[in-house]
Amino acid sequence: MFPLRQVIATVRYTTPAFRSMSASTGPLIDLAVDNDGIATLTMQRPPVNSLNLELLDALGKALDDVSKNKSRGVVLTSSSPTVFSAGLDIMEMYKPDIKRVETFWTTLQEVWLKLFGSNYPTAAAINGHAPAGGCLLSMSCEYRAMVTGKYNIGLNETALGIVAPKWFMDTMCNTISKREAEYALTTARMFNTDEALKVGLIDVLATDKADAVDKCKKFIKKFDKISPIARALTKQKIRAEPLTWLIKNRKQDTDEFLTFVQNPKVQQSLELYIQALKQKSAK
Amino acid sequence: MFPLRQVIATVRYTTPAFRSMSASTGPLIDLAVDNDGIATLTMQRPPVNSLNLELLDALGKALDDVSKNKSRGVVLTSSSPTVFSAGLDIMEMYKPDIKRVETFWTTLQEVWLKLFGSNYPTAAAINGHAPAGGCLLSMSCEYRAMVTGKYNIGLNETALGIVAPKWFMDTMCNTISKREAEYALTTARMFNTDEALKVGLIDVLATDKADAVDKCKKFIKKFDKISPIARALTKQKIRAEPLTWLIKNRKQDTDEFLTFVQNPKVQQSLELYIQALKQKSAK
Amino acid sequence: MFPLRQVIATVRYTTPAFRSMSASTGPLIDLAVDNDGIATLTMQRPPVNSLNLELLDALGKALDDVSKNKSRGVVLTSSSPTVFSAGLDIMEMYKPDIKRVETFWTTLQEVWLKLFGSNYPTAAAINGHAPAGGCLLSMSCEYRAMVTGKYNIGLNETALGIVAPKWFMDTMCNTISKREAEYALTTARMFNTDEALKVGLIDVLATDKADAVDKCKKFIKKFDKISPIARALTKQKIRAEPLTWLIKNRKQDTDEFLTFVQNPKVQQSLELYIQALKQKSAK
Repeated sequence: MFPLRQVIATVRYTTPAFRSMSASTGPLIDLAVDNDGIATLTMQRPPVNSLNLELLDALGKALDDVSKNKSRGVVLTSSSPTVFSAGLDIMEMYKPDIKRVETFWTTLQEVWLKLFGSNYPTAAAINGHAPAGGCLLSMSCEYRAMVTGKYNIGLNETALGIVAPKWFMDTMCNTISKREAEYALTTARMFNTDEALKVGLIDVLATDKADAVDKCKKFIKKFDKISPIARALTKQKIRAEPLTWLIKNRKQDTDEFLTFVQNPKVQQSLELYIQALKQKSAK
Repeated sequence: MFPLRQVIATVRYTTPAFRSMSASTGPLIDLAVDNDGIATLTMQRPPVNSLNLELLDALGKALDDVSKNKSRGVVLTSSSPTVFSAGLDIMEMYKPDIKRVETFWTTLQEVWLKLFGSNYPTAAAINGHAPAGGCLLSMSCEYRAMVTGKYNIGLNETALGIVAPKWFMDTMCNTISKREAEYALTTARMFNTDEALKVGLIDVLATDKADAVDKCKKFIKKFDKISPIARALTKQKIRAEPLTWLIKNRKQDTDEFLTFVQNPKVQQSLELYIQALKQKSAK
Repeated sequence: MFPLRQVIATVRYTTPAFRSMSASTGPLIDLAVDNDGIATLTMQRPPVNSLNLELLDALGKALDDVSKNKSRGVVLTSSSPTVFSAGLDIMEMYKPDIKRVETFWTTLQEVWLKLFGSNYPTAAAINGHAPAGGCLLSMSCEYRAMVTGKYNIGLNETALGIVAPKWFMDTMCNTISKREAEYALTTARMFNTDEALKVGLIDVLATDKADAVDKCKKFIKKFDKISPIARALTKQKIRAEPLTWLIKNRKQDTDEFLTFVQNPKVQQSLELYIQALKQKSAK
């Protein structure tokens, strides 16, 4: 599915993801509500918040908690000093248990439905790299503040030999223009922060994580004088098309993923990929 | 539906609308055709062109006249020195006669279908504030010249506890990017003229009303060398999706509005709102 | 359908197209593959690459060749020093043989389906004017480099009394914003290179044809590290809506064109048009 040269090219994003397999301790999501009633969800699956089943599950439950407790809004961020989220955990796809990998995918769908279609305001404080699934999570929010620096953001699935599902694409087209999305998706473009700002992939630059979180909270406070119900229905109406599409096509979308992940060539590629990671890890 | 603090925040747009209830004299629309065959429709329901049933009805009839008399195009403007149109007249929604409020809504739908889908070129000379329905009317035209100054424009329905119908949203997405539309609709953003120009909500700034009307006529004259039939079909083809949606969903859209307006909580909010207007009016 | 004044206005684009009727010699498409495996398709139907049945047929076959021989990508350009392509050959529509004009249209559809939906990367080196069908071909590629100068590009169908089919419009909306597309389509706007760059109708300026071709090849080489299959599926997924629409509506789209072309008024207009071309040609 993808030759080794690509594998090498993408190692820098995913090496830590490989290392992380044995590093899981403590709650995967920290949920903290400030005095203004704004919740901050911090992904903390060291070292790079690779989205495995457990992290996705914890994220979905945290979003439910926010919903039940009627927080004024959610800021999504990361405990890592350099990575917001490295995207989907490749280990979920390698030699998968079919039952588990199916749950992995449907959980990802649920997290997206909850986040992209949430009642409450959402904002991403992107304090590090946000490739693939990391970019998806941030784009599913309504606002993005990103720490200036060497960090990159983008849906770079094609560089990994993967086709982003339609709802990933729809989420990107909800954020940037169709033309920019096509170019970015096909070329696996990773935007630096200036480029991301210019095309509208992020809304504002931040000096550091605290500043990014502050700017997200400032965005959420914009809704103080807005009727929460009218706000929620307006958001869900303008986002209705991608939401409705996935709700109607969940099974087909899951089947496509299961077919992909069980393809012997994909497994071969993943094996090569993981060996490359191990070698890099060992150095 | 919306707390009092919001009501206060929106009083500045709508106070005159309340006063206007007793002020209706003379024709609500002035239709003047210049030597070049371009019609100017001037809304003149003092003080702020709140869109009540009568004004909408007069606007619809004027659009029919333009259509029958094959004017080269239409410039839509206002007789008020500071307001293009304050949007839907809230008095149509307060303790409504169901028959009348239904006609009010279907008339609004008809005006939009005529204006957004017109054969002839349309342009808005926005010579004052254009919140909510005022913004909708201007966006339904093909070109917008707005007088620079302290005037604002935007679909600020959520600030009033209202969810803009899908066709309002579609009209905005026909004008500015999806991302800008989502942000503007959820935050009830009112754009000043510079901001409106930057995102493309308006096409050009004007120094005063005469300049705005001139620029609109200049736009309409662009079509001198264009086949009118090809032009009309091209416009209707590119605008087909929102037009077709409303044509197919008129009853459902009307029912949604009627349910909303008969909700006791909505009526409570309207009462509080109108009391606040009266108090401000009395000062 | 369109008055003579319009005809005169458009002569400058199409005069050579008329002359070209007798000038066809040699292959209409030159297909050259460089050492990197990138194919360059050069349209060479002097003097202005008017798209008649034979040129479209040759273009379609060349695209098939590229597909079979698994070129790394295609650069589309012109042998003319001043025109990329003048668009559809009007002589195909004047007093048409119905069988031939139907094949003409279905061949155009096929070329577009192949180009817009191709597996391989595509780029247009626009080395001259690109009105109407010329603009369509370039927009169907994934990248556009255009030689700076006095050249123009745009879908100016309405100036010729023609309504661009829905898939022409969809192709434009895949490239530039809905608002810009509506304005351009209704006003028959021809963009100069600076304007085209500003709205995103082209991606980059080039100093001359060689530079344009170079920049196109540089774009195609971006995919060296991208899985070709993932790339192709991603492109086809993000372009799925317009592709699916035409596939589902080919017959209806063809019938619309056949009705248009058999309309006596259209034939009258074409006759006037061609006479004007002859007179200009004779000078």
